[in-house]
Amino acid sequence: MGIILGENQYGKAEVRLVHVDRSQPQHVITDFNVTTQLRGDFGSTHRQGDNSAVLPTDSQKNTVYAFAREYGVGEPEDFALRLGRHFIATLPQVNGARIAIDQYPWERIPVGSAGPDHAFVKPGGERRNTVVTLDGDDSWVVSGLADLVVLKTTGSEFAGFPRDRYTTLAETTDRILATSVTARWRYRAEVAYGQVYAPIRTLLLETFARTHSLALQQTLYTMGSAVLEAFDDVAEIRMSMPNKHHYLADLTPFGLDNPNQVFIAGDRPYGLIEAQVTRDDDISDPGRAWESVPGFI
Amino acid sequence: MGIILGENQYGKAEVRLVHVDRSQPQHVITDFNVTTQLRGDFGSTHRQGDNSAVLPTDSQKNTVYAFAREYGVGEPEDFALRLGRHFIATLPQVNGARIAIDQYPWERIPVGSAGPDHAFVKPGGERRNTVVTLDGDDSWVVSGLADLVVLKTTGSEFAGFPRDRYTTLAETTDRILATSVTARWRYRAEVAYGQVYAPIRTLLLETFARTHSLALQQTLYTMGSAVLEAFDDVAEIRMSMPNKHHYLADLTPFGLDNPNQVFIAGDRPYGLIEAQVTRDDDISDPGRAWESVPGFI
Amino acid sequence: MGIILGENQYGKAEVRLVHVDRSQPQHVITDFNVTTQLRGDFGSTHRQGDNSAVLPTDSQKNTVYAFAREYGVGEPEDFALRLGRHFIATLPQVNGARIAIDQYPWERIPVGSAGPDHAFVKPGGERRNTVVTLDGDDSWVVSGLADLVVLKTTGSEFAGFPRDRYTTLAETTDRILATSVTARWRYRAEVAYGQVYAPIRTLLLETFARTHSLALQQTLYTMGSAVLEAFDDVAEIRMSMPNKHHYLADLTPFGLDNPNQVFIAGDRPYGLIEAQVTRDDDISDPGRAWESVPGFI
Amino acid sequence: MGIILGENQYGKAEVRLVHVDRSQPQHVITDFNVTTQLRGDFGSTHRQGDNSAVLPTDSQKNTVYAFAREYGVGEPEDFALRLGRHFIATLPQVNGARIAIDQYPWERIPVGSAGPDHAFVKPGGERRNTVVTLDGDDSWVVSGLADLVVLKTTGSEFAGFPRDRYTTLAETTDRILATSVTARWRYRAEVAYGQVYAPIRTLLLETFARTHSLALQQTLYTMGSAVLEAFDDVAEIRMSMPNKHHYLADLTPFGLDNPNQVFIAGDRPYGLIEAQVTRDDDISDPGRAWESVPGFI
Repeated sequence: MGIILGENQYGKAEVRLVHVDRSQPQHVITDFNVTTQLRGDFGSTHRQGDNSAVLPTDSQKNTVYAFAREYGVGEPEDFALRLGRHFIATLPQVNGARIAIDQYPWERIPVGSAGPDHAFVKPGGERRNTVVTLDGDDSWVVSGLADLVVLKTTGSEFAGFPRDRYTTLAETTDRILATSVTARWRYRAEVAYGQVYAPIRTLLLETFARTHSLALQQTLYTMGSAVLEAFDDVAEIRMSMPNKHHYLADLTPFGLDNPNQVFIAGDRPYGLIEAQVTRDDDISDPGRAWESVPGFI
Repeated sequence: MGIILGENQYGKAEVRLVHVDRSQPQHVITDFNVTTQLRGDFGSTHRQGDNSAVLPTDSQKNTVYAFAREYGVGEPEDFALRLGRHFIATLPQVNGARIAIDQYPWERIPVGSAGPDHAFVKPGGERRNTVVTLDGDDSWVVSGLADLVVLKTTGSEFAGFPRDRYTTLAETTDRILATSVTARWRYRAEVAYGQVYAPIRTLLLETFARTHSLALQQTLYTMGSAVLEAFDDVAEIRMSMPNKHHYLADLTPFGLDNPNQVFIAGDRPYGLIEAQVTRDDDISDPGRAWESVPGFI
Repeated sequence: MGIILGENQYGKAEVRLVHVDRSQPQHVITDFNVTTQLRGDFGSTHRQGDNSAVLPTDSQKNTVYAFAREYGVGEPEDFALRLGRHFIATLPQVNGARIAIDQYPWERIPVGSAGPDHAFVKPGGERRNTVVTLDGDDSWVVSGLADLVVLKTTGSEFAGFPRDRYTTLAETTDRILATSVTARWRYRAEVAYGQVYAPIRTLLLETFARTHSLALQQTLYTMGSAVLEAFDDVAEIRMSMPNKHHYLADLTPFGLDNPNQVFIAGDRPYGLIEAQVTRDDDISDPGRAWESVPGFI
Repeated sequence: MGIILGENQYGKAEVRLVHVDRSQPQHVITDFNVTTQLRGDFGSTHRQGDNSAVLPTDSQKNTVYAFAREYGVGEPEDFALRLGRHFIATLPQVNGARIAIDQYPWERIPVGSAGPDHAFVKPGGERRNTVVTLDGDDSWVVSGLADLVVLKTTGSEFAGFPRDRYTTLAETTDRILATSVTARWRYRAEVAYGQVYAPIRTLLLETFARTHSLALQQTLYTMGSAVLEAFDDVAEIRMSMPNKHHYLADLTPFGLDNPNQVFIAGDRPYGLIEAQVTRDDDISDPGRAWESVPGFI
């Protein structure tokens, strides 16, 4: 029996880059968490500890900071593509890369007309992200968002389901529906990434709000379909939506009714609904786009 | 040598209560994390396992949900006072209580004039909180906020400090200043708690933004002073502000300058600045208000 | 353009099951975190909210607890296979499943010969896990461990690497090597899962300790090879090992040397080394084993 | 109304120090998380941003690393006392300090008689800690442990409790008892800290195991008493023990009994039991020992 080195990659994870554009009185802040991973011919370091091909992960980190100065940052997709293409172009032993970026949003602190324009507050919660996969001259961009927590106090049902020996759940025609949306979509063309992100996010939110939900699956599918219908450059979308259960408190032992007013927010377990929504007119090749992207959680 | 039972308390922690007010077409959601702790004569359960005085923590949890139905929720301070007074009034063995509530904010999802008004998005990040301490007929209310992350891209200096054998830090007249504000303030009178919280939060934000900072201590003190000057019902404020360091990336090895554009966001260690700011015209008795409240982190 | 529902699955995540075997005076405790996901014909719930095929996730949770009573728990792989086969056998609309289990270890509290044998302490840290994928009559078992944190104070070098414009790292022939091992291996045959887990873990630990490391890649590959050489039923192993950097503190400004004694433990960024190690005599079909398993982090 | 600066302190938090003693073939590793906070006359930095008294937190961090080289690390209590006394002795504006250290345990990886003796595995979970408070020439040492998770599968009851309108809990004479022990004890004399920590930890574990529990309060009190009775140098102990509920799964809907075998491990809410246990022969002055130590959680 012989041992074989299979797929492998290495790089620097979670490089925390904050960039300030001070070219205008109103500063612009960009907050990235960058992970670079290189692929190529790295057999000798695995087998013999020969590092002659291994550009240090420390150098990859340095490249992130240097590029932010040399080229600015811009959209995470563009920054990731630039980094990946640089490594492939300058290192002969590298033939592929995976560059992932999380972006944390910051909002301006409003201080009136005479106030400073360089103070920010971090809303927390959701974040924008991208995973760019490069293989030689090919590249794929999968972008998305994570931890977008939404809730509806009504307009959600769950009924008509089958019952087996282990089923005790009651049907309901009015429940709280809450989830934390993780969505990732694959672009089939290069776009102005910064111009489509906010509209996609808004569409996801509005569709969640407007959809009368018969099942969380239906809500997910409707949200995904809306994105595909509105954004021609999106080839497919994969979503993972936990059902963050809110249990109606049983107050009858205390002589009280509870007309959908008092709920127990549960932690675990939670339902977990995951699906891919795609289109029948897409002839783009997903290639290696999803190989190292968790389409589902 | 004899063993003595000293201070003690018991209760239910992190009761997750979500309340929906459906009385108007526009639903109102309130999201609390409630911790109740009772104090009194509980020596026999500690010493002999005699539980005849120990109202189960399960009953305390039930009370939280039942009270939400019977009285509604309202402001966290009012809900906490009602709970604490109930336990003291109805249980002869209980003479004190500590009721703590964290409130998670939710924002409406805007969907246009014809849309539903029962869909929400959770911004994450900061949260409002209160700790109410009751001792017999006395009560103290300490309210605050936590995890309010703010940052200034300029308008911050740190210079003029002393140097000892272990000092290597360079002086700076322009740095990023970032912190996560934890603030707790003690009321010296009952107020309309819901009407002062948002203005205090806004004032903290604006003062952070407007203050040219020579030290994080100065920023903290200015923020605290602003609250005391504007809100006569606030007796004192205690703040804990980590200095979330953003290090200027040294790009000189790559032949690049870095005029305050590219920063490394550090995790640990971090500076930690903590102070109490109070007023000389306060004759209120803090009593037991801070005994089990971490004024500092 | 038509919308297409692609891959999808749903189920209950993080069902926290604790089972006590009281059949002997020495109790045996098993602590699982179970996630069930079903695959099959669920188009109508996504498209029309028709739930006639959707066995509630609540029923899946009930099944976990009921099966623990009916059949006991045993090894996580066996319990997962039993659950998956049950869903496929009893629900005509279900043709596949993904059952994942994390197991938390508990150790006995030693209390002497006369003491009780039903008290445990949880060591924290690492955990054993498995992901079982079923597709009709086929099944694949991928087991592993996560968060196994190890460190060597010497016996680790990193030198001989190439240098580009952005390289500033110094070579070292003696450094701290620390990592948190995540390993997942695919079985090519059914085995007595409980009898191989502990020896594989021990072999990973010992190989880490014994290997003089010229690169973390080499350490990883040596660890993976050792498992394949010793365990014939393991077809392949995938490992993800962050390089948890320990930086030598520069004490020269204080007139002090530092002969590898004082280190700064870094948080972020960290190196990330990931590879698959396999064997040339394996003719087993990985099938869908890795489709929803993060082989790399 | 005038604004007053009250209590204040500042310093560097979470300085991650790893020290390797290489003086013997068997290396010794010490892993600390150090937080230093200085107290004294810092009014001018708060009020005017005058930093002439403010030794940078960066210098405090440097001192931690330099001291580890100059004096070694030893026990966390001794290291903390040395740091605190240094700041008070060398900085005239500093008259007090709070030095807190968490210590993470590491265990040797056994590799046989011929193997290396410099490889370690981190068990995770519990950690040892100390908070040393200094005020001029006075000092107080409060040491403890956190996150020590223990569980008993039997030997625990809860019955005989009072019932009010909101009580629905059933009495039980056999339940799982699980908790995560946080304990902090104050020394009334300087001791060989490293020699008493392990025995105290063992005694806490054994007492938990041996005590037939009628209430978690009783278990806590018995554990605390045991420490006071066995360790004359401990003046008092404060413990915080969450009741990590394990609910018996109700399997009757499935035609199954459940004789204390299958449990649901709950997350939230949880009971929270906190008490101080002290001795009647103690004349030591707690002074400022507990001022900034959370005796209860």
